[in-house]
Amino acid sequence: MKAIVKPSAGPGLVVRDVPKPSCGPADVLIKVRHAGVCGTDLHIAEWDAWAQGRVKPPLVLGHEFAGEVVEVGDAVQGEFSVGELVTAEGHIICGHCLQCRTGNGHICQKTRIIGVDRAGAFAEFIAMPATNVMRLDGIPTEIGAIMDPMGNAFHTVLTADIPGSVVLVLGCGPIGCFAVGIAVTAGARAVIAVDVNPKRLAIAETMGATRALKPGPAVEAAVMELSGGNGADVVCEMSGAPPAIHDAFRLARFGGRIQLLGIPSGDVPVNFATEIIFKGLTVYGVIGRKMYETWNLMQRFLKGGRFDPRPVLTHRFPIDRIDDALAAIKSGDAGKVIIEIGA
Amino acid sequence: MKAIVKPSAGPGLVVRDVPKPSCGPADVLIKVRHAGVCGTDLHIAEWDAWAQGRVKPPLVLGHEFAGEVVEVGDAVQGEFSVGELVTAEGHIICGHCLQCRTGNGHICQKTRIIGVDRAGAFAEFIAMPATNVMRLDGIPTEIGAIMDPMGNAFHTVLTADIPGSVVLVLGCGPIGCFAVGIAVTAGARAVIAVDVNPKRLAIAETMGATRALKPGPAVEAAVMELSGGNGADVVCEMSGAPPAIHDAFRLARFGGRIQLLGIPSGDVPVNFATEIIFKGLTVYGVIGRKMYETWNLMQRFLKGGRFDPRPVLTHRFPIDRIDDALAAIKSGDAGKVIIEIGA
Amino acid sequence: MKAIVKPSAGPGLVVRDVPKPSCGPADVLIKVRHAGVCGTDLHIAEWDAWAQGRVKPPLVLGHEFAGEVVEVGDAVQGEFSVGELVTAEGHIICGHCLQCRTGNGHICQKTRIIGVDRAGAFAEFIAMPATNVMRLDGIPTEIGAIMDPMGNAFHTVLTADIPGSVVLVLGCGPIGCFAVGIAVTAGARAVIAVDVNPKRLAIAETMGATRALKPGPAVEAAVMELSGGNGADVVCEMSGAPPAIHDAFRLARFGGRIQLLGIPSGDVPVNFATEIIFKGLTVYGVIGRKMYETWNLMQRFLKGGRFDPRPVLTHRFPIDRIDDALAAIKSGDAGKVIIEIGA
Amino acid sequence: MKAIVKPSAGPGLVVRDVPKPSCGPADVLIKVRHAGVCGTDLHIAEWDAWAQGRVKPPLVLGHEFAGEVVEVGDAVQGEFSVGELVTAEGHIICGHCLQCRTGNGHICQKTRIIGVDRAGAFAEFIAMPATNVMRLDGIPTEIGAIMDPMGNAFHTVLTADIPGSVVLVLGCGPIGCFAVGIAVTAGARAVIAVDVNPKRLAIAETMGATRALKPGPAVEAAVMELSGGNGADVVCEMSGAPPAIHDAFRLARFGGRIQLLGIPSGDVPVNFATEIIFKGLTVYGVIGRKMYETWNLMQRFLKGGRFDPRPVLTHRFPIDRIDDALAAIKSGDAGKVIIEIGA
Repeated sequence: MKAIVKPSAGPGLVVRDVPKPSCGPADVLIKVRHAGVCGTDLHIAEWDAWAQGRVKPPLVLGHEFAGEVVEVGDAVQGEFSVGELVTAEGHIICGHCLQCRTGNGHICQKTRIIGVDRAGAFAEFIAMPATNVMRLDGIPTEIGAIMDPMGNAFHTVLTADIPGSVVLVLGCGPIGCFAVGIAVTAGARAVIAVDVNPKRLAIAETMGATRALKPGPAVEAAVMELSGGNGADVVCEMSGAPPAIHDAFRLARFGGRIQLLGIPSGDVPVNFATEIIFKGLTVYGVIGRKMYETWNLMQRFLKGGRFDPRPVLTHRFPIDRIDDALAAIKSGDAGKVIIEIGA
Repeated sequence: MKAIVKPSAGPGLVVRDVPKPSCGPADVLIKVRHAGVCGTDLHIAEWDAWAQGRVKPPLVLGHEFAGEVVEVGDAVQGEFSVGELVTAEGHIICGHCLQCRTGNGHICQKTRIIGVDRAGAFAEFIAMPATNVMRLDGIPTEIGAIMDPMGNAFHTVLTADIPGSVVLVLGCGPIGCFAVGIAVTAGARAVIAVDVNPKRLAIAETMGATRALKPGPAVEAAVMELSGGNGADVVCEMSGAPPAIHDAFRLARFGGRIQLLGIPSGDVPVNFATEIIFKGLTVYGVIGRKMYETWNLMQRFLKGGRFDPRPVLTHRFPIDRIDDALAAIKSGDAGKVIIEIGA
Repeated sequence: MKAIVKPSAGPGLVVRDVPKPSCGPADVLIKVRHAGVCGTDLHIAEWDAWAQGRVKPPLVLGHEFAGEVVEVGDAVQGEFSVGELVTAEGHIICGHCLQCRTGNGHICQKTRIIGVDRAGAFAEFIAMPATNVMRLDGIPTEIGAIMDPMGNAFHTVLTADIPGSVVLVLGCGPIGCFAVGIAVTAGARAVIAVDVNPKRLAIAETMGATRALKPGPAVEAAVMELSGGNGADVVCEMSGAPPAIHDAFRLARFGGRIQLLGIPSGDVPVNFATEIIFKGLTVYGVIGRKMYETWNLMQRFLKGGRFDPRPVLTHRFPIDRIDDALAAIKSGDAGKVIIEIGA
Repeated sequence: MKAIVKPSAGPGLVVRDVPKPSCGPADVLIKVRHAGVCGTDLHIAEWDAWAQGRVKPPLVLGHEFAGEVVEVGDAVQGEFSVGELVTAEGHIICGHCLQCRTGNGHICQKTRIIGVDRAGAFAEFIAMPATNVMRLDGIPTEIGAIMDPMGNAFHTVLTADIPGSVVLVLGCGPIGCFAVGIAVTAGARAVIAVDVNPKRLAIAETMGATRALKPGPAVEAAVMELSGGNGADVVCEMSGAPPAIHDAFRLARFGGRIQLLGIPSGDVPVNFATEIIFKGLTVYGVIGRKMYETWNLMQRFLKGGRFDPRPVLTHRFPIDRIDDALAAIKSGDAGKVIIEIGA
């Protein structure tokens, strides 16, 4: 079958034929229709320090996808039927550690990620453990293909208390733009979206942001106006930019909540006294998606009809144009980029 | 000043002149513009058993209102200004008991309710402790006048986890109709509203109900369809009707949450095993409004602009027509009924 | 192998030879050392209406046990080693429904219970899915054998907020007595234990109850004295007796929490207004054990050394004396009764 | 009356006569028996940069105390009686802001602290708003005098989930030592206490620490041994030392909770990715005491009899020896230091 492959230790990807995976007894074999492209794929393509330390080529890339069930393993007959459209959580967890046993599989230390630690979804077929697979139930596969990163946004937003809150979203990449729409749908009193890139701000506005602003004094003015001078109840930090992290602490209200998803590249000096302790803040580190509360909530939002992620989906490429897909991401102008494989 | 008074122990109300209240040092004196009429007022007017046991005539009725500050007590100067438009929590609590000291003043056992235990708001003026008074900040006084019962709906709905939930509202009186709108605004995946009265169902539909249905098999069908066969995540029981209480238990999903606001008139036999324990349900008794989290949330929803309670407000009467106002409530067809006093 | 069997539809049990179970690929085969006897086993032995509707003879009984791993299935090699001492959750859940996917497997509607719906643990060997098996890590097998019912007590107590609380435990059967000890260890300000049977009260006292009392006015007096007149913060209803259910509502403080575990035999009339709603209570139905938060907490309490369940373990019988074990339970005087099988 | 006074802008304190305060209508006048000395008092005595920016001499110092009611204001008659022994929350809050209205008065931005922003408790008498005053109900005044800092420890420990948890306490000053005892009483599976000072470690051990260790590899070894290799469920950072903050992040388990109370003197560089986000941590900034949930819990622990704070109380001085009291604190060897005033 055709797949996008990191062929060897070094920059670059190739599209080439690889053997079709077989379906283990606890697996579901899926014919991929759409796959999402992520910053992680760019890191692997460019072979940065992180990729060099983690990825063992040759490897089929891709961890965001949706497709059609074509085979069901013997041990999970009855759980899925051939022909069903599905997506899947790409983190394959151990199932036995403290985290897995207490509803926190998203921080299982033995997690293996498809497209990073084992064969991924930029391919015509992928075999997935049935426990990771979820029916789309009417959600289109191009939306299903981006439920992994959208799930990060759901995890970020809905582990805070949103109805009635003033929500500040710092960073309007695809996950930040999803976060805006989720907060709006969940009854935020106002959502203030911040990014340096006007194209991203335009998407945030389409997703329902009350205000979409470049960083600067107007952000504080908007937060204070909409919160009656108190500050943001919830700040979703999705940029990883050190100044944004300080803004998060500064613009949160006393007693507010900071959700940290963006990854700064190095150390950030923090004044714990004035930035966190005296403000009585709660700070939460967001990684992955809760298995499977986050997926359950996401499916409900998508089926409910009031949350529409499609404005975030800006680019579509055929599998052969993976380099163009990565370039679109690298430009900083893209929302979510997907690859059409077997659609 | 003119006021609606229960003159003596027995049925009936009169509109007559009473002395204008004075403003104590910790009080705010308010010129009433609009006041909401409640089932409680009907009980007092008709002098039912509950009223006979609780109310000491002569008494000015009315516990829902909004108006204009006309005097500020010496000890609370600076907290409010003459001319500001305000509403107030009508439960005056002791401030010293365990409940008051731990954020549960709504269940203070020494609560005294205006219009029930002390002079009320169906009058040209009312003196209120400043701690009970809240600025309207642009919310119109006719909405401010119904924030007390609307607050019961906010308390009922927002002490459950709403974003993404299937919410079943049993009973579409004014509080039930508010609850529908709150759940919709807070991102419910679907809201199913149930009442025997088609006029009330029409209001519930205007408030955004996904389905508005008479009791019967269609309710279960709708709940199951919209929840993927699981049952309702949250049931708000606002009717007090025994069959509705059983429906609440039956139609909640395993692990769901029941919010009980409606007051049944007598004992209801419950099968604890099958209705509550084996289903792993959580049942919460709702009384009053959390002071003042509920008010804070309510103000944010009203200012955010996506929750509009006005369709519930169906009748307006001048103060002299209190009997017509009570008749409208008694008919069962009314949404919320208000009295215009000093508007 | 030797096993305790319900041979056919009708009263009585027999001890007889049955085939040794085989170890499936995802299973662990366990040589049983100790097994706990439960009221459920008595129901099946006596062949009451519930048993007639649920159990399909012939069936090996027993759902509480601990023993030694003697074989590990091919698909779960590495998860367990031969020779390890283990116990297991006896509810085998589907793993795919909403409840299973969101940390509420204890209310999975497809649950199959060992010793009820499939072959149980009153036998020399039992095969269990590896996901249900837990290492004892130094906890003796006779304690391991009663972790299933002890888990119900942990679920009941630790889903309430215990440190500093006044806890009322109604019903001092084995689960109630465990609950007393758990609440004491978790820092309850006081634990009041209530039962009609002085032998059970003596066990409750050994488990640390601040007061151990027969039902009557002394209970209310103790609750009020120890709570400063407020009432119990948490009531654990473990008796299923209708008067105890009313006591639970009456003796809880305003805003308190009721944990319902005891199963009344029929309907109980409830005055929702005065017993639940006006008091602002939260009522929670407890069934089974949270998988696996409850087990995790239980192991920590047992290893921490300050919670000692042994006083509750009052009777030990060899496998051939199952009828004596059931008689001990039926007498009402027993704490927990265990059968020694392969010890 | 005699009082300890900061007479003017500059180092040093004096003991001199000042006018006895009068009792306002909403106040309670208290004859001070015991007062606690705090690091804050040392900062004011030494006139450091913080003190220079905040304190306006002349000022009576002292914010921790207990004593006897000698007069009750007109507006609060009935709430307290002359002769009752009481303590008080030293943070006088506005009562009207969002934080005050929603149970978060401890982070009211208009807080005025006795002994810092207004006359304090190192004096024979102090007038306090009745809402801040709490009956001791049998708790001795020398314990009552240290309930303010002990409350910080209760706030730190009991806003985490303690029963069954492995708790790491970094820094065993008085508040850290209280924290150890609270965690033990609340059913921690183990409490590991860390400090550089052996005298403080000895107190922590007396308070029940499972292990009391100097910083170093033995700390990680103990945490891993007692947590089965997972890391601490809850870390209470009470030292403010930057290396301890990094230890907090490193030794917490994935998904754990960090309670930050210690105040670092400057910026601390944080690797948000590895220290917080990838670990899925929750970090909470602790300031003051929740009004009045923390006080309620503290009174219950003290009355319950299983939490005894007296080992932390190491030094007692008469009012004239305030300089010796401050020297004891500065030595780093002291637990809690109190001044005997009217005892």
